Amino acid sequence: MKIEYQPIGVIHSPFKKIEGMPIQPAGAANVRGTVEVFEAYRIGLKDLDGFSHIFLLYHFHRAQGFSLHVVPFMDSEARGLFSTRAPRRPNPIGLSVVRLHGIEAGVLHIENVDVLDGTPLLDIKPYVPEFDPRGEVRTGWLEEAWKTVSSRKSDHRFK
Amino acid sequence: MKIEYQPIGVIHSPFKKIEGMPIQPAGAANVRGTVEVFEAYRIGLKDLDGFSHIFLLYHFHRAQGFSLHVVPFMDSEARGLFSTRAPRRPNPIGLSVVRLHGIEAGVLHIENVDVLDGTPLLDIKPYVPEFDPRGEVRTGWLEEAWKTVSSRKSDHRFK
Repeated sequence: MKIEYQPIGVIHSPFKKIEGMPIQPAGAANVRGTVEVFEAYRIGLKDLDGFSHIFLLYHFHRAQGFSLHVVPFMDSEARGLFSTRAPRRPNPIGLSVVRLHGIEAGVLHIENVDVLDGTPLLDIKPYVPEFDPRGEVRTGWLEEAWKTVSSRKSDHRFK
Repeated sequence: MKIEYQPIGVIHSPFKKIEGMPIQPAGAANVRGTVEVFEAYRIGLKDLDGFSHIFLLYHFHRAQGFSLHVVPFMDSEARGLFSTRAPRRPNPIGLSVVRLHGIEAGVLHIENVDVLDGTPLLDIKPYVPEFDPRGEVRTGWLEEAWKTVSSRKSDHRFK
């Protein structure tokens, strides 16, 4: 079974190279960018400006192949790929929650962008905290590691 | 530009038909299911059992075509597609946060499943609340509508 998708837009950010990128939106606070939605899809943006935050789903276009064990940016030990957000995945789909500041002529002005400039956009979904889990949440190996995430930057290991 | 993905597994749930499905995980509390990860990808599951919640990304295999304006299950007014989670999207990718109870031989035991039985799995990512937005969150037309989401079920309109 093959699944075929097509970009519905392009994400623009200050990050022209993989090196030095923030690892996650938490490390990309105040980083501004835009999402250019292709004309054919723009009428689907109606009502989106009522949401302060949105999910972006995108294609990690620079990721080549995948490894099922990876040493994450935030760790020094090899972890199972699916317990990480590393870009080199069997299906290299990226997921970020960004702040939406406004929409003008099919261009979304966003903040907390942790995405490479030129990344193909696959989908936009509204972020709704009521759909998040309730109660206790455990985050495995990340429990310690995330505390330092905002101060770390990516390096060469995902090129 | 064409993007090609392949399923890495299959999601199993009690929902054999679209009618009567919960609309979101919030409406699927206590609904149990499993994710069968294909053998080739199983070593990537290492460390995942440390997480209490995970994102599932999947292909809405029963969605045909898309509409850029839709009347959501939770509303009576036509909304822009990207401000909804309706399955008929240009790239029909679904996103759910589910509770992870355990992993046995490549099978994930999950709860809060709002997915149709047999849905092709595209990716698994760890859920980490620290990556969620801080501060005020606005949720547009959903602000009122979500209050009733847990009591509503889907109907025929996405067939």
